[in-house]
Amino acid sequence: MAYKYEFARPALTVDCVVFGLDDEGLKVLLIERALEPFRGRWAIPGGFVRVDESLDDAALRELQEETGLKKVFLEQLCTVGTLDRDPRERVVTVAYYALVRLSNHRVQAATDAREALWFAMDDLPTLAFDHDQILESAYERLQAKVRYQPIGFELLPNKFTLRQLQSMYEIILDRELDKRNFRKKILGMGVLTELDEVEADVAHRAARLYRFNKAEYRRLTKQGFNFEI
Amino acid sequence: MAYKYEFARPALTVDCVVFGLDDEGLKVLLIERALEPFRGRWAIPGGFVRVDESLDDAALRELQEETGLKKVFLEQLCTVGTLDRDPRERVVTVAYYALVRLSNHRVQAATDAREALWFAMDDLPTLAFDHDQILESAYERLQAKVRYQPIGFELLPNKFTLRQLQSMYEIILDRELDKRNFRKKILGMGVLTELDEVEADVAHRAARLYRFNKAEYRRLTKQGFNFEI
Repeated sequence: MAYKYEFARPALTVDCVVFGLDDEGLKVLLIERALEPFRGRWAIPGGFVRVDESLDDAALRELQEETGLKKVFLEQLCTVGTLDRDPRERVVTVAYYALVRLSNHRVQAATDAREALWFAMDDLPTLAFDHDQILESAYERLQAKVRYQPIGFELLPNKFTLRQLQSMYEIILDRELDKRNFRKKILGMGVLTELDEVEADVAHRAARLYRFNKAEYRRLTKQGFNFEI
Repeated sequence: MAYKYEFARPALTVDCVVFGLDDEGLKVLLIERALEPFRGRWAIPGGFVRVDESLDDAALRELQEETGLKKVFLEQLCTVGTLDRDPRERVVTVAYYALVRLSNHRVQAATDAREALWFAMDDLPTLAFDHDQILESAYERLQAKVRYQPIGFELLPNKFTLRQLQSMYEIILDRELDKRNFRKKILGMGVLTELDEVEADVAHRAARLYRFNKAEYRRLTKQGFNFEI
């Protein structure tokens, strides 16, 4: 017990809700807790913030230690400080959400996680601590934010078809979109680059591939453009 | 030095950017620091989180202690944990923003603040710590959020004219709005109640007063309605 303070301090943690997308739908990455409390229960990856690392660095480090994920898109969600949310002591957690391209990332459990697994959003186990609520908040933020910021592209491969793009929005927003309107809207914004390539290895007629043009999006945004789906 | 922990812990604070609106424009409530560091400099009200209080309670308590403000509209903004943001030690702060009706609230300095004063947004002093950046983030959040959530009403008197309402949006968004389009849009949403009253004590022709109908807004939102200015 080497560290002494004049006033009692809450412990500070980071927790990160990781979303991924594959042909089956939206997924969340959970870890099985190897230690008490909630030993054996599924939880959002996370852990204690070191006194000499930034909050973002803590979230990235914990993700890598517990799941093997590196270099993911990550944003702060909110900070939760409910008094009794951890049975051990007062713990305030800075919650993050992350979006990953499932095709690019391999997942592996490590340190105090027994196992790391992707779960379907519509088939989640009951989580440890208040992680059900944090996950729900992250899902609401994702649903709201994909509509006015181009973060959804973080879930897609770098090259995608318009069908894949529409499907991503339909899965996240949980409703069908009109194909003609959707294409008109997304192409009209001028933030997609049409590639000289079509998709490979498909049974149906191979569709055109597109790429999200981040530089053009930034340029347009500076001129007052608003992304909106 | 009564509190001992196995690992070093960052100190945890809350800071709150308080916005108010009067005839002259958008205002921010600042306190003059009575203690080191940054003694004599202006800062956002805030202070240390007690181990037995929630984050929201800490923000409300600090606001009341330092400025006398009670029962304000308050929302979490973000949490800032940059390593060197406080010269004393590692301090992580949960930043809030608050909106108050200037007509309803009286401000008074207290505890470790020498003085609490409203400053015009376009005439701010350089602030202590990283409070300039936190204030800038809060202003960006306010500008973005007034457009898709009816939080702007928190800055107006309970009864207001359409002219006051439009002026509030013009001040926050920092651009002129077309009067006819604005009235059509806001009245078309069906979230204003037209009152049987007109404004009092004005030189020009007294205009109709309106009230924001929160119950109706909630009912419409459940049906999928999106507030949008």
